[in-house]
Amino acid sequence: MSKLSPCPIHQPTETERCIESLLAVFQRYAGREGDSCTLSKKEFLAFMNTELAAFTKNQKDPGVVDRMMKKLDLNSDGQLDFPEFLNLIGGIAVACHTSLLVNTHPH
Amino acid sequence: MSKLSPCPIHQPTETERCIESLLAVFQRYAGREGDSCTLSKKEFLAFMNTELAAFTKNQKDPGVVDRMMKKLDLNSDGQLDFPEFLNLIGGIAVACHTSLLVNTHPH
Repeated sequence: MSKLSPCPIHQPTETERCIESLLAVFQRYAGREGDSCTLSKKEFLAFMNTELAAFTKNQKDPGVVDRMMKKLDLNSDGQLDFPEFLNLIGGIAVACHTSLLVNTHPH
Repeated sequence: MSKLSPCPIHQPTETERCIESLLAVFQRYAGREGDSCTLSKKEFLAFMNTELAAFTKNQKDPGVVDRMMKKLDLNSDGQLDFPEFLNLIGGIAVACHTSLLVNTHPH
């Protein structure tokens, strides 16, 4: 038994690991302050500056993360819940996928 | 230089690894036959039976994956594109998150 397999019943697939990671990352940041089921603006900034730093550090406009938060916050409660957070991840994934398609099939 | 770091410029974060995995898994199955940018029904079945086998093997109804495909195929073209595929991943992640919340705060 490897120490890397605490749950020997089922070795997670790549998709399952991914879903687990999304839940874990969200909970890690949402649990920092206030409601542990939502990301406050401060928690969202911490997430963006750590997990998506490759994106945020290239932004010259300091208001871009603020505007992203406003756009993602569909019910305008000043917090991002898990489905709102997933819209961000999905949006980035689709943007990466589209960019790959354009680069693979440029014409 | 570790052989695990082919790209020494930037070590991906957990969120970035996740986005990369989603793209890679989709492309792995979509590339099997026909249009390599979409999942055919056969490719979707292969994905479900491999990546989400923990879910499909508990389904007694053999039509459930067919119905899932129909529901996810928003433009009804008989194929799942990447955004349609992400709706499935998002749906599962939200279901897991909700289930965790219920189990953590049962009342």
